[in-house]
Amino acid sequence: MEYRPEEKFMKEAIRMAYLARGEGDYTIGALTVKDGEILSLGENRVKVDNDPTAHSEIVAIRRATQKVGSRHLEGTVLYTTHEPCPMCTSVAIWAKLDGIVSGTHIEDMDNYRKQNPSKEWLWRTINISPQYIVDHTEEELFLIRGFLREECLKLFHSM
Amino acid sequence: MEYRPEEKFMKEAIRMAYLARGEGDYTIGALTVKDGEILSLGENRVKVDNDPTAHSEIVAIRRATQKVGSRHLEGTVLYTTHEPCPMCTSVAIWAKLDGIVSGTHIEDMDNYRKQNPSKEWLWRTINISPQYIVDHTEEELFLIRGFLREECLKLFHSM
Repeated sequence: MEYRPEEKFMKEAIRMAYLARGEGDYTIGALTVKDGEILSLGENRVKVDNDPTAHSEIVAIRRATQKVGSRHLEGTVLYTTHEPCPMCTSVAIWAKLDGIVSGTHIEDMDNYRKQNPSKEWLWRTINISPQYIVDHTEEELFLIRGFLREECLKLFHSM
Repeated sequence: MEYRPEEKFMKEAIRMAYLARGEGDYTIGALTVKDGEILSLGENRVKVDNDPTAHSEIVAIRRATQKVGSRHLEGTVLYTTHEPCPMCTSVAIWAKLDGIVSGTHIEDMDNYRKQNPSKEWLWRTINISPQYIVDHTEEELFLIRGFLREECLKLFHSM
């Protein structure tokens, strides 16, 4: 059965993005959903935790695994305001997620970065799509991109 | 100046791999080196911590960032007994490492997995090389693979 993404979840991920900004970090948010309920929330914490792995997606997935007590999260979907980088997509595969729903496209991030260079934010991208990562595994991970993209694009302006 | 990998560091990474096995995890080890000294050690902890992100490379890098108090580790080299997956390579990029020295090749892991299927260990691979990841960034990360490969290959037999 095809997965139908829900606006309420992406809106909650957007709320987490603003929470990250409030703490002084990149305005990016994520969450995981299982059985139609939010399983875990994640806000970007790379700056506040001095942790290069603390993208909002990783924060949400790690919290979910700790909550469930398993490194595998079958039946779980990740929502993220920005299309995930290869690190986050790979973690979704290692964690056996069902799929990922994302807002802005990687190309949006790359374009914004080039148009708004900032040493303070060090906005960098790895230009490999989540689909490319998934295509090089034996996993069946669905990818829905551009969901509430216009609302997620607004987050760039508060980076 | 070209980086010359040192056997003593890979041997210490191999020791960390056996430490991981002793704790009941995958036999994979890593460490980071800065200014010719070990900065941090990492053992695979995915099973013992129920954490899909806890590859030995990530454990070593996160420990280094916590020790240094910065998410960026310029001038630091990662040693790992197995060629890193896209997650770990991406973290090396986000953390601004100088380079990665690895033992076995990804192809070695994939071949071993196919010849030794095991439900218990769930050995999976994402078949994308670290070089491919680096080539899709603007970073200059050196990659030295196959260092002490024969000794690292022996680790598979104690998975």
